[in-house]
Amino acid sequence: MIEFWYEFASTYSYPAAMRIERVAEEAGVAVAWRPFLLGPLFHAQQGLTDSPFNVFPVKGQYMWRDVERICEDEGLPLTHPSQFPRNGLLAARVAIAGLEDGWTAGFSKKVYEANFVADLDISKAEVLEPLIAEAGGAPLAALEAANSAEVKAALKDNVEQAKARGVFGSPSFITADGELFWGNDRLEQALDWAQRHTTREHA
Amino acid sequence: MIEFWYEFASTYSYPAAMRIERVAEEAGVAVAWRPFLLGPLFHAQQGLTDSPFNVFPVKGQYMWRDVERICEDEGLPLTHPSQFPRNGLLAARVAIAGLEDGWTAGFSKKVYEANFVADLDISKAEVLEPLIAEAGGAPLAALEAANSAEVKAALKDNVEQAKARGVFGSPSFITADGELFWGNDRLEQALDWAQRHTTREHA
Repeated sequence: MIEFWYEFASTYSYPAAMRIERVAEEAGVAVAWRPFLLGPLFHAQQGLTDSPFNVFPVKGQYMWRDVERICEDEGLPLTHPSQFPRNGLLAARVAIAGLEDGWTAGFSKKVYEANFVADLDISKAEVLEPLIAEAGGAPLAALEAANSAEVKAALKDNVEQAKARGVFGSPSFITADGELFWGNDRLEQALDWAQRHTTREHA
Repeated sequence: MIEFWYEFASTYSYPAAMRIERVAEEAGVAVAWRPFLLGPLFHAQQGLTDSPFNVFPVKGQYMWRDVERICEDEGLPLTHPSQFPRNGLLAARVAIAGLEDGWTAGFSKKVYEANFVADLDISKAEVLEPLIAEAGGAPLAALEAANSAEVKAALKDNVEQAKARGVFGSPSFITADGELFWGNDRLEQALDWAQRHTTREHA
């Protein structure tokens, strides 16, 4: 098993989300989807109140070109969103609400497409509703659950867990034995590690 | 051809330097070694006066673990240096002085081993002298050249060039058509790009 830690505003998490099920299945490794928020981590760890790609334009310029190349190689469409980063708070709560009924992965991929292909404002409930339905969830019930104290606490807990386990970017992958890998380009290495170190999982 | 832009203090540049000749030869791509200094870029672009891996410990902790894994996969020894980052100014000047006589690559690899395996202070002339000799250069003449106005200006020019071309980290690879790739893990992609886009080189 590997945990897939992802933030909906994160550009590199878009190709990771779109391909993780395929490559993990090929590797025979299960994926646990762990939505979290990067904003609180950027602030606590680096004193940032905006994406580092906005704060440091030279890194931002490279990132957009790099993501373009990655998406081209993966055959994924990409639109430079008119707003970046977008607020993924509600979407992350909805993703957590979907875990019990198994539509989190499908919903999450649709949110990434809404943000990075259709250029939609994923912070809005009316944008998320059809995505929940397309992923097999019940939109109104899901949004109600997303606004419950339980789900809000679960997301906060994910953010705290991420911080405690050394996460500082998205996507991140954590194996069952606690090994952390950061970046879409580390997904294969994380899966390989998970295959080679299964002790705790089978213990 | 690809340009290999590297700073001697940079951890990820160590495995890149050790493997670039092998993988570039396999790809049929020539490598131009371009020593530069990252400090002035970190300061100008991000306001940093120390390595981001020191300024942001959570990133530093991950980086050391990540580099450990990379070196293990590559069969490269790694010692966490007792001083990080080390001052690579003199070594970069020596590397430039060696270009004409063709010992820059060999010398540069020895400097990385001195820094990240033998844990030696690469800022010191007496540390660099034997490395120059082992790479086929004449130590005293090389150090004299390294301290010449011409070589000092050439290194400054490299730093300015790096800045102008969007470099913000090390290692970076730039293809003949100006495509920038950042990171040891992008070396294969850069070589692939160089193979597929040779128009300008052959024009």
